[in-house]
Amino acid sequence: MALDEHFDDFMRRDWDTGADGTVRFAMVGLGWWTRDYAVPATQQSEYCETTTVVSSSPEKAESFAEEFDGVETALTYDEFTDGAGTDQYDAVYVATPNALHLPYVEAAASYGKDVLCEKPMEASVERAEAMAEAAEDVTLMVAYRMHTDPAVRRMRELVADGFVGEPTHVHGHMSQRLLEMIPDRDQWRLNPELAGQGASITDLGVYPINTTRFVLDRDPVAVQSAMYSGSEGFEDVPDERAAATIVYEDDVLASISASQNSYEDGFLRVTGTAGQLVLEPAFLKPSGLTVSRSGIDATYDLPEMGEAQQMQAEFDYFSHHLLADTEPPADGEYGVVDMRVIRAAVESARTGERVTL
Amino acid sequence: MALDEHFDDFMRRDWDTGADGTVRFAMVGLGWWTRDYAVPATQQSEYCETTTVVSSSPEKAESFAEEFDGVETALTYDEFTDGAGTDQYDAVYVATPNALHLPYVEAAASYGKDVLCEKPMEASVERAEAMAEAAEDVTLMVAYRMHTDPAVRRMRELVADGFVGEPTHVHGHMSQRLLEMIPDRDQWRLNPELAGQGASITDLGVYPINTTRFVLDRDPVAVQSAMYSGSEGFEDVPDERAAATIVYEDDVLASISASQNSYEDGFLRVTGTAGQLVLEPAFLKPSGLTVSRSGIDATYDLPEMGEAQQMQAEFDYFSHHLLADTEPPADGEYGVVDMRVIRAAVESARTGERVTL
Repeated sequence: MALDEHFDDFMRRDWDTGADGTVRFAMVGLGWWTRDYAVPATQQSEYCETTTVVSSSPEKAESFAEEFDGVETALTYDEFTDGAGTDQYDAVYVATPNALHLPYVEAAASYGKDVLCEKPMEASVERAEAMAEAAEDVTLMVAYRMHTDPAVRRMRELVADGFVGEPTHVHGHMSQRLLEMIPDRDQWRLNPELAGQGASITDLGVYPINTTRFVLDRDPVAVQSAMYSGSEGFEDVPDERAAATIVYEDDVLASISASQNSYEDGFLRVTGTAGQLVLEPAFLKPSGLTVSRSGIDATYDLPEMGEAQQMQAEFDYFSHHLLADTEPPADGEYGVVDMRVIRAAVESARTGERVTL
Repeated sequence: MALDEHFDDFMRRDWDTGADGTVRFAMVGLGWWTRDYAVPATQQSEYCETTTVVSSSPEKAESFAEEFDGVETALTYDEFTDGAGTDQYDAVYVATPNALHLPYVEAAASYGKDVLCEKPMEASVERAEAMAEAAEDVTLMVAYRMHTDPAVRRMRELVADGFVGEPTHVHGHMSQRLLEMIPDRDQWRLNPELAGQGASITDLGVYPINTTRFVLDRDPVAVQSAMYSGSEGFEDVPDERAAATIVYEDDVLASISASQNSYEDGFLRVTGTAGQLVLEPAFLKPSGLTVSRSGIDATYDLPEMGEAQQMQAEFDYFSHHLLADTEPPADGEYGVVDMRVIRAAVESARTGERVTL
């Protein structure tokens, strides 16, 4: 490709071949993420809209219906599960606490609705497997929004094209100060019954774990890890912070870490025999990509993709698949693999032993 | 400290209180490192000089004596061991293959000579322990030249001062293409009898492992690791590439990797609860330090410290200790700890189990 085309096409949506129609979404779980990013994303989307909102609180659902144009139906969880308003939506976005994903995906699938489910899939491998099975007759996609980030897609292409030679090492990290962002010790992310086995590896570690998998186009095969919890508020979880050595196919050695109680940071660094790719910051606002080869480094300062734009790309991508009648690669079986990595990391931290997947 | 003083004093040698005299060195092991960096460093040094060279090859030793001003005595290893020319030098620099460090340190110590010994200390923990014991009555320093790198010393001070809050995570990596740098499959770094248990973790991994220890001022306590060798030339070593999760005191989780067959790279990233320090590149030519706190990043573009300047600082530092009659902290007992980490990494890669130090 000529260099000018490389620049002109850097932000391209290579997956977007055009499609006719509009997917009508029901939003299940109306937390700040849904309010600030998901519903606005559908309002900006070319391929979808939000018509229905579902919450435990009728008042919250009603307030969404008033606040957002196009939202015409407000349902409680019970009404949704009982099949109310199924003629008002075509697909469902599930953004409840992890341990509540399964029942709403089951309900949606029972009414033939396709599902975009937030990651991690569920609170355990078993429940994620049950979700994949329940959704066999509909389209289920796990919401890995890095898969539609342009810089991440270019990294994946560069690895596939051999730009870095054979990939050998990855370093990836994601951290934030959860209790400063959400000053509430009773929040679901710190409650194993709602979040699952971990707090950092589950909620943040899944970004470098899965993005490594996506960029390398290789699956994880073995996990070793160490975890620590000692600060106030983290008594019920094993991993205020976590670090893992994860071996991916072809013996790529990945050094992955995550923390809910560290300075906000995210990066992904892919080293090969012949070159290197560094995305920094990564995950929250990927905007700097440094590519290196033959002793030369070039840093791309990219248009920032904030959470709102990331979510719009993801809704467009998922809806495009539905309208074009194609299957997204990140389906239930795919998502279960990351759940197995999370389980292996928690187990390895406890036993000290390598867990083969 | 006022900001102008911070800049003006950034490169300061905080350890240099001045000293009178000149330490006369015997250089043992005359490979390219000694020729290109070590002897020239002593020629630039304020506190030392090279008067004696020692090699298996009388011709090589003679050629050094002719090439470098001030080098007046050329010895074979046997002559050195037998005590020839001991009135011509005060201290010894040992830069032979790892498994030959011990006999020359023993010989030097038997003649009351102080020793600067290259890292890793030796080919095994047992031999390193024997070295520490043999050198009990002289001053022995292991040649961790990052300890005199100004950026690394400032990182250590910033961590000690609480700039990053409580340190939580480290990522560190060092890699090169060994067989492109030295196109010889019979070289000692790939021969376990001369290099010791590993090739990457031993020769390169020791940089991030020890620099993490120095910057954090905390010792390693547990190691998990994975290794891979599969390329031509790496048949005799376990770790063409290696990655380890190393827990340091206070549960700092360090993700460390090294490769003798990857694109040349080095970085060190220290994350804490309140901030972050990133040295990149690190180890070979540390020149960029990014410090982050309160959502603000500042990147220092530092005067480059190439290998020659690094070695000069190290020789100055060691000689200053001898002239001032003070003991360098990186003594034999200190160096043995890193040897235990290397042994634990090789063992953990083989067994899959966490090794507690």
